[in-house]
Amino acid sequence: MNKGRIERVRKIMMEKGVPQIIVSDSLAIFYLTGKRIDSGERLMALYITNEGNLKLVINELFPQDEVDGLDFVWYNDVQDGVEVLSTLINDENVIGIDKVWPSGFLLRLQELLPDKTYVNSSLIIDDVRKIKDEQEKQAMRESSLINDEVIKELIPWVTKGLSEIELSDKVKEIYAKHGIKEYSFEPITAYAKGAADPHHVPDDSYGKHGDCVILDIGGMYKDYASDMTRTVFIGEISDRQREVYEVVKTAQQLGIDAAKPGNRMCDVDAACRDYIESKGFGKYFTHRTGHSIGLEAHEYGDVSSANESIIEVGQCFSVEPGIYIEEEGIGVRIEDLVLITEDGCEVLNKVTKDIIVVED
Amino acid sequence: MNKGRIERVRKIMMEKGVPQIIVSDSLAIFYLTGKRIDSGERLMALYITNEGNLKLVINELFPQDEVDGLDFVWYNDVQDGVEVLSTLINDENVIGIDKVWPSGFLLRLQELLPDKTYVNSSLIIDDVRKIKDEQEKQAMRESSLINDEVIKELIPWVTKGLSEIELSDKVKEIYAKHGIKEYSFEPITAYAKGAADPHHVPDDSYGKHGDCVILDIGGMYKDYASDMTRTVFIGEISDRQREVYEVVKTAQQLGIDAAKPGNRMCDVDAACRDYIESKGFGKYFTHRTGHSIGLEAHEYGDVSSANESIIEVGQCFSVEPGIYIEEEGIGVRIEDLVLITEDGCEVLNKVTKDIIVVED
Repeated sequence: MNKGRIERVRKIMMEKGVPQIIVSDSLAIFYLTGKRIDSGERLMALYITNEGNLKLVINELFPQDEVDGLDFVWYNDVQDGVEVLSTLINDENVIGIDKVWPSGFLLRLQELLPDKTYVNSSLIIDDVRKIKDEQEKQAMRESSLINDEVIKELIPWVTKGLSEIELSDKVKEIYAKHGIKEYSFEPITAYAKGAADPHHVPDDSYGKHGDCVILDIGGMYKDYASDMTRTVFIGEISDRQREVYEVVKTAQQLGIDAAKPGNRMCDVDAACRDYIESKGFGKYFTHRTGHSIGLEAHEYGDVSSANESIIEVGQCFSVEPGIYIEEEGIGVRIEDLVLITEDGCEVLNKVTKDIIVVED
Repeated sequence: MNKGRIERVRKIMMEKGVPQIIVSDSLAIFYLTGKRIDSGERLMALYITNEGNLKLVINELFPQDEVDGLDFVWYNDVQDGVEVLSTLINDENVIGIDKVWPSGFLLRLQELLPDKTYVNSSLIIDDVRKIKDEQEKQAMRESSLINDEVIKELIPWVTKGLSEIELSDKVKEIYAKHGIKEYSFEPITAYAKGAADPHHVPDDSYGKHGDCVILDIGGMYKDYASDMTRTVFIGEISDRQREVYEVVKTAQQLGIDAAKPGNRMCDVDAACRDYIESKGFGKYFTHRTGHSIGLEAHEYGDVSSANESIIEVGQCFSVEPGIYIEEEGIGVRIEDLVLITEDGCEVLNKVTKDIIVVED
């Protein structure tokens, strides 16, 4: 049990006037209780009151050791788990519901307790998870340091005649060497044409002299995700590629500079986007600037023009502008993770962003 | 678009008095429309009326070719997708909801349309998916035939000194040779002690002379899942192991014999369970006898004492009794898939169930 985190949840419940919530997301349950349980399609629900009582409704198929401060409420496969859960609900009218809870369970609860008011309460947990505590910061740092090592070992392979898929498999092989068997996402390894498509999935294409190569990779370490991108060049770099690269590199640094407490998330996006637009590449920067990250590669709170929330100390997100010129087969993206500090941010990735041309 | 399947859905909607449904499960959408789209956390919803009108609400980030008979309704990231969906809902009071739809979307729809009645309508699609059509039967047959080949190539490896994890990796390597890169589930490869635990996950254990080895594997082929289990022995088989094996083998055959139209799903379970109990091993058979399978390894409708539904032609499910004696380090499970025919069933797996002792 993580009492500090639970206390923060309880405080926001009080502020928002939500007397009780049902948390179903298994990572959120892990975050609060330290229990990592995959119950598959079977109901698992953490019931939390604003008095700080926690009960975990869980199927008998997943036996657990005792946990101080957490009551287990067991049901079995011949029982209706939601009915068991419904008996815990207190007299207060409002029930907060996790946005990822499968509707089948919510509809059943609404049938059993039709007079209650059901609200989406995911933001309560999201707001707490958004601010990393010391233990999490350390895990994020270590996770990204390993990612740095992996990408350094990976870069020489771009000229070794591997297809995009083979290069992506190589990423996994290098992660395995570092003890990492789970990835934040499927590695993106894209040559030229593929690099020029921000939604490209590695295929059987091979790289050739003069190609840019996007390497966007992340692994899971001590439960925390890393995520970084470098763009390198095979054999030589053209003037045009150099121009695009330098624009992205400067834009990314401007984004990092804007990542500080008091600024808004959209200011980070604007810092990157305005510069890219000023250089005439605006229409080639087709995605948001970044996303929050932690126990998952994509957590609540993106770095986009739509997110006007104020940046706070302890947030962790990616800064990853890109320029994708399909008709020229040029794509460049540079991505680091940043951890917000009192007066700015700590950049978790240390690998150089100077131009890298790999000899072929 | 698969008009036959949609017509079957429409018919059940009329029978059940559900005038409109929202389908969100991406496999169900694929099953009906032929469109395989992963929209991640972004809303994707197939709206179907009992008049047979289909509209797919989908984010502009996932552009699609036109489909005859399907209207696309686009929204973008600055729009509220559920609000867009809500404008499609007709005047009828009842709205059927997919049980897997994340509650965040349902709560928003309920906020926008508070006077409607929301019901869980997943069974409508599940009942249609349960009965495989000819195209699906053929895919299931081919998928299981490949699985047969894979397990035949795998069996000699149990004496090659691999750990459970290495043996599990070997399964994937063999699948890859057969062009399969996606699995129905993570392969289960378990020696002796691990085999005696039905929920065991492969670890660093090694096999030794006299061990039983459970191999439970499945791959995805032409979108359809295979799933089979064989238990083999390293070097020799003890009298006790032989006794347990023969009981499971006979029980499994009794289950297959009971798998025919007119019987109930629970009759298949009882056929296996009663025999195992009669031989004194009842308390060691701790799970249900099987599960339905198709586009997913586990589909709606399990083979258990609780499922009294009548078996129909075209259903496909596993028959997989097992005996797990933890204190003796003995575990045996035998699993085949069966496809229900007019007068019984077709067993999709052809690999022998005679005792296999692999020389070490």
